[in-house]
Amino acid sequence: VASRSFDKAANFAKANGFPPDTKIYGSYESLLDDPDIDAVYLPLPTSLHLKWAVLTAQKKKHLLTEKPVALSVAEFDQILKACEENGVQIMDGTMWVHNPRTYKMKQFLNDKEKFGQLRTVNSCFTFFADPDFLKNDIRVKPDLDALGALGDAGWYGIRSILWAADYELPKTVTVFRNPVLNEAGVLLECGASLLWADGKIATFHCSFLSNLTMNLTAIGTLGTLHLTDFIIPYQEHQASYTTSTKPGFNELVTGWVQLPSEHTVTVDLPQEACMVREFASLVANIKKNGAQPDKKWPTISRKTQLVLDAVKASMEKGFQPVEIVG
Amino acid sequence: VASRSFDKAANFAKANGFPPDTKIYGSYESLLDDPDIDAVYLPLPTSLHLKWAVLTAQKKKHLLTEKPVALSVAEFDQILKACEENGVQIMDGTMWVHNPRTYKMKQFLNDKEKFGQLRTVNSCFTFFADPDFLKNDIRVKPDLDALGALGDAGWYGIRSILWAADYELPKTVTVFRNPVLNEAGVLLECGASLLWADGKIATFHCSFLSNLTMNLTAIGTLGTLHLTDFIIPYQEHQASYTTSTKPGFNELVTGWVQLPSEHTVTVDLPQEACMVREFASLVANIKKNGAQPDKKWPTISRKTQLVLDAVKASMEKGFQPVEIVG
Repeated sequence: VASRSFDKAANFAKANGFPPDTKIYGSYESLLDDPDIDAVYLPLPTSLHLKWAVLTAQKKKHLLTEKPVALSVAEFDQILKACEENGVQIMDGTMWVHNPRTYKMKQFLNDKEKFGQLRTVNSCFTFFADPDFLKNDIRVKPDLDALGALGDAGWYGIRSILWAADYELPKTVTVFRNPVLNEAGVLLECGASLLWADGKIATFHCSFLSNLTMNLTAIGTLGTLHLTDFIIPYQEHQASYTTSTKPGFNELVTGWVQLPSEHTVTVDLPQEACMVREFASLVANIKKNGAQPDKKWPTISRKTQLVLDAVKASMEKGFQPVEIVG
Repeated sequence: VASRSFDKAANFAKANGFPPDTKIYGSYESLLDDPDIDAVYLPLPTSLHLKWAVLTAQKKKHLLTEKPVALSVAEFDQILKACEENGVQIMDGTMWVHNPRTYKMKQFLNDKEKFGQLRTVNSCFTFFADPDFLKNDIRVKPDLDALGALGDAGWYGIRSILWAADYELPKTVTVFRNPVLNEAGVLLECGASLLWADGKIATFHCSFLSNLTMNLTAIGTLGTLHLTDFIIPYQEHQASYTTSTKPGFNELVTGWVQLPSEHTVTVDLPQEACMVREFASLVANIKKNGAQPDKKWPTISRKTQLVLDAVKASMEKGFQPVEIVG
């Protein structure tokens, strides 16, 4: 554990019940200089990612970085280049995609007979930030997490849409005309519509100003996937979702036939641990077997960052649609 | 029961188990000319509403009309004028607002401590029309239900948004850039964002091209209302919805505390019957007590129609925002 001071790092390790032999560093540099370190988890504010992610890669440490990975795709690409040049793995900290539930849900979306072809996704992540958060949290500071609600909450919504769309990038992104910014110009709330060439449409909404809500609905020609806790499951050890396939109405249209059904997945480890396990296995494969760093995770990260960039660009263009150039 | 031929009307009455003494008419005119008739339910294609609704009013019959009430606000206002001039009640056939569940849900939305202030609504109604529907149904014909999916499915979504917003009209409506039209120019799918002066935002999506789905989510500062069967409840005799108030995460953010809770309302009569009961009581009050026709229902109808008009206008303006002028 490293912090800008030894005491802060030591206190963190103690407060979080780290083992007594945990190594404590009084600076990030000293951690990166330790040859015993294989990989780094980078939870710093987004504005610091470029510097420290690049340095991490240059020191040949594998990188699990909090999302958003960077403030822009341009920054992202500098980080990615450093990782590629130094042969290290990079993965972002989007934990819900590692929940076993996510894999089960994906099987449903891939089922042409039960789900058909994806037509629409709606994703919403909001939480009601208290006055202290809105004044002091790094996520409302232009020099720290400058992407605000878009980078924090919107990242998940955008990722969920890309996930449902098999990571096919939309053709255009058009931001809704109601972004809310604080006095420093940091986004507190926004949303956008994403359009694909084949007619698919997705919308997301993210906010620090509304009650905690996380809905995801993906509608295909034949089926619907729905859940209301997609980022953090209601319970640690089991997670549910609802599917329906070709439901209809009874004869008098006073009720449904073929009701949506709920599915529950047992989750042995918290999804954060599943994420670390996935990251560790990629790192082990590189270290022990001489494998190349996996490209799937950084590709997915980059696409998410591309859409974030497009949302910002659409705002700057006066809410006009912005083409995504992969 | 009237139809364009006596046999069609008689067959309809028989097929639907109407009492043997049901009056059968071989033309709409003959029904409207019958002095024993107090009120008319008008389920004709929308393009015929103007003619027959106005005539119904002129014949001093009260009017329960299928939605959309008209093809435009201009038409709507002609119908409304005829009803007002002739002292007859008009109400549209949006049945879900008459479900007892709807009143319970509204209590939650009105609860400043449990829901706070409304910030966001997302409403979605889609169903997957078969090839026969897409070729032959009145809802895909420019000379019949010319508003297509917007008039049929979108009406409900727009109404649900207005309902959640206490029927406060949005300031602007901006259609999404993906409307799908058939060869005859009738909408098969569209959606839009609605913005209010106070920063509220709502989105709706309606489609004939996606699996049957009807989600409604209203998010306030402190609470969330959610249900997935808002137009037709899953079951006739009971209807559920979910609320949450100030939920949060556990200490390690591996689960939620204060989970959303499900509420179930017993429904004695199908919501269509509740609607007819409401309409009949208004008519009885006019007929027996000399009351004035109620203004609440036509006001709500007109606002819904105003938003429909704005969606169409936004399409015609190349997906630009359109101001709503009440």
